[in-house]
Amino acid sequence: MLELPNHVTIKEVGPRDGLQNEHKEVPTEDKIAWINQLSEAGYKYIEFSSFVHPKWIPQLKDAKEVAASIERKPGVTYAALVPNMKGLEGALETNVDEVSVFMSASDTHNKKNINKTIEETYPVLREVVTEAKQAGKTVRGYLSTVFGCPYEGNIPVEQVIKVSRKLLDMGIDELSLGDTIGIANPKQVDAVLAQLKKQLSFDEIAMHFHNTRGMALANVLVSLEHGITTFDGSLGGLGGCPYAKGASGNLATDDLVHMLHEMKIETGLDERKLEEAAIFVQSKLDKALPSHHMQVLNKGGGVSNG
Amino acid sequence: MLELPNHVTIKEVGPRDGLQNEHKEVPTEDKIAWINQLSEAGYKYIEFSSFVHPKWIPQLKDAKEVAASIERKPGVTYAALVPNMKGLEGALETNVDEVSVFMSASDTHNKKNINKTIEETYPVLREVVTEAKQAGKTVRGYLSTVFGCPYEGNIPVEQVIKVSRKLLDMGIDELSLGDTIGIANPKQVDAVLAQLKKQLSFDEIAMHFHNTRGMALANVLVSLEHGITTFDGSLGGLGGCPYAKGASGNLATDDLVHMLHEMKIETGLDERKLEEAAIFVQSKLDKALPSHHMQVLNKGGGVSNG
Repeated sequence: MLELPNHVTIKEVGPRDGLQNEHKEVPTEDKIAWINQLSEAGYKYIEFSSFVHPKWIPQLKDAKEVAASIERKPGVTYAALVPNMKGLEGALETNVDEVSVFMSASDTHNKKNINKTIEETYPVLREVVTEAKQAGKTVRGYLSTVFGCPYEGNIPVEQVIKVSRKLLDMGIDELSLGDTIGIANPKQVDAVLAQLKKQLSFDEIAMHFHNTRGMALANVLVSLEHGITTFDGSLGGLGGCPYAKGASGNLATDDLVHMLHEMKIETGLDERKLEEAAIFVQSKLDKALPSHHMQVLNKGGGVSNG
Repeated sequence: MLELPNHVTIKEVGPRDGLQNEHKEVPTEDKIAWINQLSEAGYKYIEFSSFVHPKWIPQLKDAKEVAASIERKPGVTYAALVPNMKGLEGALETNVDEVSVFMSASDTHNKKNINKTIEETYPVLREVVTEAKQAGKTVRGYLSTVFGCPYEGNIPVEQVIKVSRKLLDMGIDELSLGDTIGIANPKQVDAVLAQLKKQLSFDEIAMHFHNTRGMALANVLVSLEHGITTFDGSLGGLGGCPYAKGASGNLATDDLVHMLHEMKIETGLDERKLEEAAIFVQSKLDKALPSHHMQVLNKGGGVSNG
């Protein structure tokens, strides 16, 4: 029999990881309204934007305005991504609760993404983490290409553990392990988590799956069996796949929540309010959201259709 | 660690269960060409059509012509669905290897579908099975709404076992258990299979999942852990969801094969040939096929993109 936890925490990355990969820019006031809807749906964690140069991600150029205007629901952690000290400075000018930093477990992917080797990235992130902690913020880390890199292929588990250890030792409070290109399969997740478990505390680990080949929920299931209880999701599957525009990318929070609730695992989230929030953000984009839930809904079904 | 089988058999139902749910009728010669491509891709089982009155399923009105013209690859079982004696008579006029019959585990769904109660259905199917066996054919049974009914909701496991036992005792060689409306969740599959295992031999059981809410591959994973090694698939996710047109329905064979191969489970299928066959049938329809594989492919990726 499956051994599953009773409660799972879902961290919503749609306003950041979702919107940064959408072609259409959502107006600031709509972002604010949407994030407020997400707070009302029961999330305890919302990554609301990224403090990154607008040249790179124009979709999120209003991070400061968003931070200033969203309603701060008690008990909710409002987080923002910061790529470097400049980003952190911007974030610290707002009342952000947590900042997140990112790097890759693959040297090539890291170089292509942030123009630094893994070794060169550590001191940059260490400074950001140290400053953030001194400012009283908690820090989250995203580690990408954990299950494979588009340039290097397989990434040895030892490498994942080494980089993870380094990041946690810097003072990062939680590390989100990303299947950046959506290639992880359940057997691999099982094998990787079995190794990681020996070296890391799963209290500090979240999983960030992509559904590019449809395996995300199967990978979640295996992770649950290993005792992982924190997962990232992007409402409606917002953001798509950066490597094949229009295909599934980020695991859709609504599909994840649905599976968990059907398995009697609590998330604290209200499926109907999630649906309303997904419909709202979809109406601000020029496309149908790709989650299975939204596919059914857009074709005439809905939450109650199971 | 996950305990998984080394080999899985995939039964392709796309030419029947897929095409019967597509709005557009595929010309007979294209069906024949497509089924021949499927044989070449390595399937050992193809359900090529249904002998049902064209008033009900006009898309499959050419079952006889298809049966007469497809190349019969040695080692492949070519099967057709027959709803009743009239259908069986049509099928027996061709050189079909196997026939399949169907009924529902839910009385209400059964009545809505074939206008008979479960009890009234048994003698009809018994006659079909007996005649088919006397004609030297093997028989497959489809049991629908195993994990829930759109009218009755939950279906007790005892009911599923009772109907399954009845069908197997008639002489049915394999029973395919269907999650007709795509609501099964992994915990439920785990619980149901744990019960079924006590009463039925899994050598006689196949699973037929729908991906309506994205859980099909997670459900496959749990089934594999229970020792199920036969699954139905519809290439490209052909057929969609009868309850929400345009949403995902039948589990896509290409997504299933991809997950299995990534987990080093053999299927005997050639992913590249499957892709060619999916591209071919997609070109004969007026829509993009919904499998994750085809989504990636249609957006510029392909098999090698993982």
